[in-house]
Amino acid sequence: MAKVVTMGEIMLRLSTPNNEKFIQADEFDINYGGGEANVAVSLANYGHDAEFITAVPANPIGECAVAALRKYNVGTKHIARSGERLGIYFLETGSAMRASNVVYDRAHSAISTATPDQFNFDEIFADADWFHFTGITPAVSDAAIDLTEAALKAAKAHGVTVSVDLNFRKKLWSSEKAQKVMTNLMQYVDVCIGNEEDAEKVLGFKPGNTDVTSGELELAGYVDIFNQMADKFGFKYIISSLRESHSASDNGWSACIMDGKTREFYHSRKYHITPLLTV
Amino acid sequence: MAKVVTMGEIMLRLSTPNNEKFIQADEFDINYGGGEANVAVSLANYGHDAEFITAVPANPIGECAVAALRKYNVGTKHIARSGERLGIYFLETGSAMRASNVVYDRAHSAISTATPDQFNFDEIFADADWFHFTGITPAVSDAAIDLTEAALKAAKAHGVTVSVDLNFRKKLWSSEKAQKVMTNLMQYVDVCIGNEEDAEKVLGFKPGNTDVTSGELELAGYVDIFNQMADKFGFKYIISSLRESHSASDNGWSACIMDGKTREFYHSRKYHITPLLTV
Amino acid sequence: MAKVVTMGEIMLRLSTPNNEKFIQADEFDINYGGGEANVAVSLANYGHDAEFITAVPANPIGECAVAALRKYNVGTKHIARSGERLGIYFLETGSAMRASNVVYDRAHSAISTATPDQFNFDEIFADADWFHFTGITPAVSDAAIDLTEAALKAAKAHGVTVSVDLNFRKKLWSSEKAQKVMTNLMQYVDVCIGNEEDAEKVLGFKPGNTDVTSGELELAGYVDIFNQMADKFGFKYIISSLRESHSASDNGWSACIMDGKTREFYHSRKYHITPLLTV
Amino acid sequence: MAKVVTMGEIMLRLSTPNNEKFIQADEFDINYGGGEANVAVSLANYGHDAEFITAVPANPIGECAVAALRKYNVGTKHIARSGERLGIYFLETGSAMRASNVVYDRAHSAISTATPDQFNFDEIFADADWFHFTGITPAVSDAAIDLTEAALKAAKAHGVTVSVDLNFRKKLWSSEKAQKVMTNLMQYVDVCIGNEEDAEKVLGFKPGNTDVTSGELELAGYVDIFNQMADKFGFKYIISSLRESHSASDNGWSACIMDGKTREFYHSRKYHITPLLTV
Amino acid sequence: MAKVVTMGEIMLRLSTPNNEKFIQADEFDINYGGGEANVAVSLANYGHDAEFITAVPANPIGECAVAALRKYNVGTKHIARSGERLGIYFLETGSAMRASNVVYDRAHSAISTATPDQFNFDEIFADADWFHFTGITPAVSDAAIDLTEAALKAAKAHGVTVSVDLNFRKKLWSSEKAQKVMTNLMQYVDVCIGNEEDAEKVLGFKPGNTDVTSGELELAGYVDIFNQMADKFGFKYIISSLRESHSASDNGWSACIMDGKTREFYHSRKYHITPLLTV
Amino acid sequence: MAKVVTMGEIMLRLSTPNNEKFIQADEFDINYGGGEANVAVSLANYGHDAEFITAVPANPIGECAVAALRKYNVGTKHIARSGERLGIYFLETGSAMRASNVVYDRAHSAISTATPDQFNFDEIFADADWFHFTGITPAVSDAAIDLTEAALKAAKAHGVTVSVDLNFRKKLWSSEKAQKVMTNLMQYVDVCIGNEEDAEKVLGFKPGNTDVTSGELELAGYVDIFNQMADKFGFKYIISSLRESHSASDNGWSACIMDGKTREFYHSRKYHITPLLTV
Repeated sequence: MAKVVTMGEIMLRLSTPNNEKFIQADEFDINYGGGEANVAVSLANYGHDAEFITAVPANPIGECAVAALRKYNVGTKHIARSGERLGIYFLETGSAMRASNVVYDRAHSAISTATPDQFNFDEIFADADWFHFTGITPAVSDAAIDLTEAALKAAKAHGVTVSVDLNFRKKLWSSEKAQKVMTNLMQYVDVCIGNEEDAEKVLGFKPGNTDVTSGELELAGYVDIFNQMADKFGFKYIISSLRESHSASDNGWSACIMDGKTREFYHSRKYHITPLLTV
Repeated sequence: MAKVVTMGEIMLRLSTPNNEKFIQADEFDINYGGGEANVAVSLANYGHDAEFITAVPANPIGECAVAALRKYNVGTKHIARSGERLGIYFLETGSAMRASNVVYDRAHSAISTATPDQFNFDEIFADADWFHFTGITPAVSDAAIDLTEAALKAAKAHGVTVSVDLNFRKKLWSSEKAQKVMTNLMQYVDVCIGNEEDAEKVLGFKPGNTDVTSGELELAGYVDIFNQMADKFGFKYIISSLRESHSASDNGWSACIMDGKTREFYHSRKYHITPLLTV
Repeated sequence: MAKVVTMGEIMLRLSTPNNEKFIQADEFDINYGGGEANVAVSLANYGHDAEFITAVPANPIGECAVAALRKYNVGTKHIARSGERLGIYFLETGSAMRASNVVYDRAHSAISTATPDQFNFDEIFADADWFHFTGITPAVSDAAIDLTEAALKAAKAHGVTVSVDLNFRKKLWSSEKAQKVMTNLMQYVDVCIGNEEDAEKVLGFKPGNTDVTSGELELAGYVDIFNQMADKFGFKYIISSLRESHSASDNGWSACIMDGKTREFYHSRKYHITPLLTV
Repeated sequence: MAKVVTMGEIMLRLSTPNNEKFIQADEFDINYGGGEANVAVSLANYGHDAEFITAVPANPIGECAVAALRKYNVGTKHIARSGERLGIYFLETGSAMRASNVVYDRAHSAISTATPDQFNFDEIFADADWFHFTGITPAVSDAAIDLTEAALKAAKAHGVTVSVDLNFRKKLWSSEKAQKVMTNLMQYVDVCIGNEEDAEKVLGFKPGNTDVTSGELELAGYVDIFNQMADKFGFKYIISSLRESHSASDNGWSACIMDGKTREFYHSRKYHITPLLTV
Repeated sequence: MAKVVTMGEIMLRLSTPNNEKFIQADEFDINYGGGEANVAVSLANYGHDAEFITAVPANPIGECAVAALRKYNVGTKHIARSGERLGIYFLETGSAMRASNVVYDRAHSAISTATPDQFNFDEIFADADWFHFTGITPAVSDAAIDLTEAALKAAKAHGVTVSVDLNFRKKLWSSEKAQKVMTNLMQYVDVCIGNEEDAEKVLGFKPGNTDVTSGELELAGYVDIFNQMADKFGFKYIISSLRESHSASDNGWSACIMDGKTREFYHSRKYHITPLLTV
Repeated sequence: MAKVVTMGEIMLRLSTPNNEKFIQADEFDINYGGGEANVAVSLANYGHDAEFITAVPANPIGECAVAALRKYNVGTKHIARSGERLGIYFLETGSAMRASNVVYDRAHSAISTATPDQFNFDEIFADADWFHFTGITPAVSDAAIDLTEAALKAAKAHGVTVSVDLNFRKKLWSSEKAQKVMTNLMQYVDVCIGNEEDAEKVLGFKPGNTDVTSGELELAGYVDIFNQMADKFGFKYIISSLRESHSASDNGWSACIMDGKTREFYHSRKYHITPLLTV
């Protein structure tokens, strides 16, 4: 089993139970998570040695976030206590034709003001095999951009494999700023995960000129854009998930991967999933 | 945004949580609603100025019904306090092959004994644009028939547009009585909403002789019956929702409308909806 | 263990959880009970063979009331299905200085329209040792007075011991009507339970002229009134519970009993109980 | 309506609410059930006179299991109190791609140590029409095998029709032991329920050599195996449910039956059911 | 009934249910409130015409705060939509020896950045009888000080009676700043509410030199300090609540009031209250 | 902060919510704990480095127990996976006069069959300061006696301070067996915790001949018995908690300690606590 480090923001998610609208809810279900924290929890669940790097405020809500990670067996000893609050997002789960709704209340969060000197990256990466981050982390604040690059430099200095999930978040930054920041960070990345939209918004790649009208041609578009990405950044692997909506109750999920060196391209089998209306 | 008045019965709905059967339930979820009250809440939600007219008993349960309307921004200042009880219905939500089950306990409700003199209809309709009622309201009691007609007369006197949802309720009255009462009330109506079954049971229209075996032909039936309705009552618009059951998990919902003057007929796009088992 | 029959109304109790006010509640806790039904459940819990006699509507809510009794091992085979609804009462549990609040919605209940011919009293009392009823049962309706007397006659005909809890309910009848009805029914009663207030309101006894300023003198008042009751009705035993409020959090509960023949009077030990704020 | 007796283990089911994983759950929903108990509850629900035979420990948890049966109107007067504990199983309800998970904690249960002398089978079957058991009951323990055969002998002695649901449980016994035990018990059985897998694992029948690639051919396989079963054991009827998975959200359920004497074979209509993700 | 206006911050309160610690909680109970909003809700509950002035963010969480006020019949038409977030506080309810714990997350709230031009104070106070605010409102931010004074000036210009609850909040400002700001605002106040501590921290009054060792002498101290307050600010009335802790389960609550003109002093009866452990 | 190791059984506690009786409950609240595990959680909460030693079954329920400890920051890396089940106890929380009720289902638990070779005690105690166990651990089974002594020997070999809470459990063993086993284990103990009853039942000490009729004399009894305990076993400290019941709602809790060498005796201040009826 590998030792994997992930870094990012962990937020308090307050979601309405039983598909209630915000205005109907008398209570919120409590969860603590975020893109990078969730990856750490999943890896720990599969038996890997996962460590999560973040900053939380020095108050009971921050400690609850840390306790949640600890419960799921994620390493938490490098988490900093600083800043004034834990980011929050409110989730109203959708129902039938009504879409889910998210209200973010994440400004001024602990991670947005954290600085590299709060973390002992040499110790963090000393025995690590892999470092994973997403495009959400540097989008949080300018301080977070510096923090992300500091972590990446340390990871590379220790020979750690680096993966990124591009994850464009338009509420946090513009495509222009994302491209400027993330293009620079790609020099540290070995494995890049992202769909066509992420590739365009975060890294500036234009989708290929393929005539995309069926499933097969869509894959051709991915081959084209993955080739461009491998050419420009020399990624070892480029990966994307693929989602098809067959009907209201039948979505097909699959994934594709390209070997950056051999340019071999694989497409996984599809899973048919009924969207979970109740969560 | 328009000022809309709706009038009818508001009931206490006691529903079993988590698709439990009545015999399994240890608690009931509480909601206050009814056909006309729900229309007022939806209109208020879309930003309209909605007012609801009803009678509730002068006790805390009646006040809870009023508070629920107020929370959703529906005007409640003309709601009367009278009568002995709020109507109740118990709802056992279905699951898989087990259908939902409703037990009504609505006899002797406040609205069933309310009289026109309890309401200042001149003030209610003074600045209103629209009045909406349904075939449920006069079905509640003979007193409610008088109350409905009094409201309709006042609405027309103030030049308010009137809409009705025919909504046949066989547990409340017979088709014979419905036809007698509702045919008379149609003189006040501008916009009539109802499907083929309502048109037959409430107004006595026979479905056309079209050979109804496919979706298109079904629409032809609606054109035929809408023409009859426009001929007889001079409605400005006639409207119906249309439901198709494609499979256990894929229902198609759409709506159609006829302009009573030009007889133009439109059919909306269809939405595919997976029936919500958990609401 | 004795075979005990009790008869009365069983209602659906809808109570707000967690000491919420009605206006705050999103759900009601469900219980089925009533003075006489609760006695049957307690006796069954102590191992007696308890049978409950009532009428419930022939709908799922009525069946739930019966299922609740069955769960607690109370015999239900003589319960009639008739009438239109199950009586309901809404309970808002108090908190700190705010008292509990009850809203009754029990008019038109099944038991209020039940008639003696719906019950096979000969079979019901064939092997019974004891019959218990309360002053609530005949207070429900005139039909319920007839039903109660029919049951009492049958009980005496089978040599069954009869007890009554006087239980005056001012919302159901006046003291005048209570005295008229209950004085007549006392001819069938062997054991009478009730405090000074019940004795006055239900049977017309005036409290004795004792100078009631301390605990001991209060007991003297009970001796006096119990003697009057034994003289007039020849009860075998007269019983009352006694409640003292020592402080906001310390109530003393005890009970007293007089042997109607020997006029011996006993007072139990006291139990100190902190009122349960959360039920 | 018939009088039906079923016999088996009743367990405490502790299931996570809202599709939570075990590690997420703060509470368990409580249910009491088991293959044979559930049949008794369903039959009572349809109005039959159902009696359930089992042993539960003489403690409050055992009494709760009995009270649950009583609530659903199942006869419980022959249930023995013995043994040290009630069997438990923990259920983590699945969600989307995550399957449900069951953890059994049923060793040392009351039924596994019960003996025939604890039950008055003559009284139990005196007025019974039908006795139903499953292959789970004898799989629980060697003592349970003896208990099952004792019940079957008594049932046949009283001319009671006997049905079995073969229900192979690999966590409780091997196919070898199942075949040895169950083949012997088939001498008492009139009606046998089980699919192809059960027939093979529990009774040792090999599926026919039909080319099973479509729905129709699958039925041919059932005709073949049912004929073998009728030949060998002389069953009056052989029955199986049939499940087809058309898509992620559309399962077809039907059933088939063969008359063991005439060898007539019927196939019911299919019901399309969206799997309930939330139960 | 009077028309009363109150102004202040309304926050989202997230409290752990069932006396759980933060680390134990899986859900938060939702309430919206604050010192001034709660006064408005209570007054509306007693039948007064209550209006609440505040600013909430233009998002669903802000709208939920407004809907909660509307449900309790508080006027909300003058509430501004501005700013980035609704203030939050987390409440861990105490149990036995463990005290309650509050975590504030109220920085950057909508009310802290609201400005006087967002409110039409002439319209707000046109027909008002009374204006109530607390020392919490100006403590929120410097902008809130300006807003409070603007409201006070408008209230006095319309001849509205003004009351203040001094309510010192050490987490929001220092005693020095409180005294500077609040001493200035007292020129607009008619009725001043506050205990000895508030009088000292917010207005700089020193407790009198009375020998405070018993209940009576404590009252003497209040007479002394109320006289000082009346002398300096010319209040019409000065009021304080008084709390005595008789034992772990018996707290005495009362209140005292001085007429600023006649210097008459009254002390109410005491209520004995068992602290609610479960709220 | 010290490094503390505790060892014992961790059980799944299933408790009825809201003071419900077992027969009323539809769900159980889930907690994982035990005398020694709770000590570890409390110490971790106060900032100590706490490690818990036990065995849990290799299934999801066992893992949930471990995750709960991890969440509360207790070290879990030495917990063994073995045995067939996790011990369970069912808790019905009392209410008013009804006492709480506990049903144990802990036979055949993982810890009852664990053996010393499953634990690397040299590593466990290498850097430990303190080892704590209770009289419950060896009471579980004969294997557990061996396991306890093996741990104690290792602890002493590493110079670790050892404390015991005598905790007599009559459902697990007799006083005779307890005295035989525990007297032997006292040779490893430095700090002994237990009240008069524990001292008598577990170690065979007779209470002193003091005339125990008041609080002070009770303390004299403790001085006497602590002196005997110090004489016989040479404990460094002997400790007991003391509980006085002043009234139904006012319990006094305090503690006393004796220095085994100087025989100095201290009594802490008392805390008055209202018993939590809702747990």
